[in-house]
Amino acid sequence: MRIGLDAMGGDKAPESTIAGAIAAVKKYGYHVTLIGRESQIRTILQKFKYPVQKIDVVDASEIIEMHEPAALSVRKKRDSSIVRGMELLKEGVFDAFVSAGNTGAVVCAATLSLRLLPGVDRPGIAVILPTLDKPCMVIDVGANIDPKPLHLLQYGIMGDAYSKHILSKKNPTVGLLNIGEESTKGTDFTKETHMMLSESKLNFIGNIEPKEVYEGGADVVLCDGFVGNVLLKVTEGFADAASKLLRRELKRSNIVTKIGAFLTLPAFNVMKKKIDAAEYGGAPLMGVDGSVIIAHGASDEKAIKNAVRAAAENVEHKVNAHVVEELQSY
Amino acid sequence: MRIGLDAMGGDKAPESTIAGAIAAVKKYGYHVTLIGRESQIRTILQKFKYPVQKIDVVDASEIIEMHEPAALSVRKKRDSSIVRGMELLKEGVFDAFVSAGNTGAVVCAATLSLRLLPGVDRPGIAVILPTLDKPCMVIDVGANIDPKPLHLLQYGIMGDAYSKHILSKKNPTVGLLNIGEESTKGTDFTKETHMMLSESKLNFIGNIEPKEVYEGGADVVLCDGFVGNVLLKVTEGFADAASKLLRRELKRSNIVTKIGAFLTLPAFNVMKKKIDAAEYGGAPLMGVDGSVIIAHGASDEKAIKNAVRAAAENVEHKVNAHVVEELQSY
Repeated sequence: MRIGLDAMGGDKAPESTIAGAIAAVKKYGYHVTLIGRESQIRTILQKFKYPVQKIDVVDASEIIEMHEPAALSVRKKRDSSIVRGMELLKEGVFDAFVSAGNTGAVVCAATLSLRLLPGVDRPGIAVILPTLDKPCMVIDVGANIDPKPLHLLQYGIMGDAYSKHILSKKNPTVGLLNIGEESTKGTDFTKETHMMLSESKLNFIGNIEPKEVYEGGADVVLCDGFVGNVLLKVTEGFADAASKLLRRELKRSNIVTKIGAFLTLPAFNVMKKKIDAAEYGGAPLMGVDGSVIIAHGASDEKAIKNAVRAAAENVEHKVNAHVVEELQSY
Repeated sequence: MRIGLDAMGGDKAPESTIAGAIAAVKKYGYHVTLIGRESQIRTILQKFKYPVQKIDVVDASEIIEMHEPAALSVRKKRDSSIVRGMELLKEGVFDAFVSAGNTGAVVCAATLSLRLLPGVDRPGIAVILPTLDKPCMVIDVGANIDPKPLHLLQYGIMGDAYSKHILSKKNPTVGLLNIGEESTKGTDFTKETHMMLSESKLNFIGNIEPKEVYEGGADVVLCDGFVGNVLLKVTEGFADAASKLLRRELKRSNIVTKIGAFLTLPAFNVMKKKIDAAEYGGAPLMGVDGSVIIAHGASDEKAIKNAVRAAAENVEHKVNAHVVEELQSY
């Protein structure tokens, strides 16, 4: 398995990306190609012990920064780690590409270099969230912020294929994220999408309210990329804030409470692992003709390692072949 | 202080609404008028001991159910607790009206009966969220799901007035909820709104990303009602799911962990209180010419009591007079 990794992408790059690559190589035995500023990467690599034949470096002199406009920077920075990585994936130099860099630029470069799968009009970013019940795939969480109902139908078909073939779910349920249960609720967009999904062959169970997502109300939850991004990032922000609040309260507490906190740690850690985004690896970019994984911008070593693993699983499970098959049956 | 309460509104009504009204009467000494099916209400009231002169009942034979279409039901069910309550507020029978019923119907009935404040084109529902730092007002969370940029500017002015005069904040910061920091990020709607807010006299600090809301990134966060509702309800759903997960883990744990959990309870309770929506009372419906508080559909006795208190505070603080003053200065 050969994975390409954007060494320069993410808030903690290139240190965290390189450390994550080495961790993935050691744990899973993959071959990783690091794309980015070669001399900088090699300097960092020297600090580690690792099987040298398992990691190589491709020089890319430019970096697309997090705040840069996506389309423009992809057009101008042809020697950026994102654009070069995508081209190398297209050429078959590796089997999948991972980036924690500028999400818009990754989506744009993937669309331009790899093109879309037949039957897909717009790519979508999917995340797999833990819920009380079973994992739930939310699509789209930021690639397509002004979609047409048809795009959500296509996301539904892709989510259905992923859930069946990769998450081994039988007849996965598909819900439309909406602020009310009834088909008459929501915007013109959600009403039209509801109608289109109802007429499809998907196991569409209607609207899913935001509070039901983490209860495991549907296997696949569809939404526009703006709303999906809010869903994802609000959860993260809230979880962070709540855990900081708790730590602050515990600091103020007496020794008895502190001992108690220490004793409950194992249970906490099990729960934290369930909620921890880093454990779940990166988000697959669905609909492009290639395996691309978008990692969180704040990815640390562990998150990068898991994103690399997610990329390999995507290839092993032949996600795109299943998606194309499913799309063709519609 | 005289508060009107929709006795029939909410998932746990009328039991929880009546119990909440009695709790508010006992704790704060307000006068509460219960609106709803009189015989049913009186039967429940008999179970309680309370100062009888402090509670009266106005009969309303109809109920607008949670799933009914808002505008249509308000037009047809003239003798519903929501429509009757709003008319009595308009007539000055009480100073503020509280409902945990069909939100759309409350917004619609309020707009029709009370009319809007001068300078307001659409009402907005505001919630005050706890954050790591200071409380944050998010507006709109569900009244206006397809707003114009001008509506968000008006929400900004109302939120500014509320933060200054009721939350005692000096020069409150106003942010636009968006999925990126830069003014060029987001949809056409957020870009236009960003421009309009930049040109206003508000202390506009630009886009606020979803993860910054609970960090206390802005005193007032503006968004369309669809996105605001997702923000609010996803947080609730996640908090519920996380606490259920934790309890499940603790059940599985050994006696040491269980003792630990018991010892940490006081710190938890402080934190839970901070996050617990019920403590924060209801959400003010901003922009209508009257004091209307929307309580959570799942309100229990305590949440109703707090919503009644929030309604009284709204009146005491002369929220609408301040809002009108602020609107006129623009």
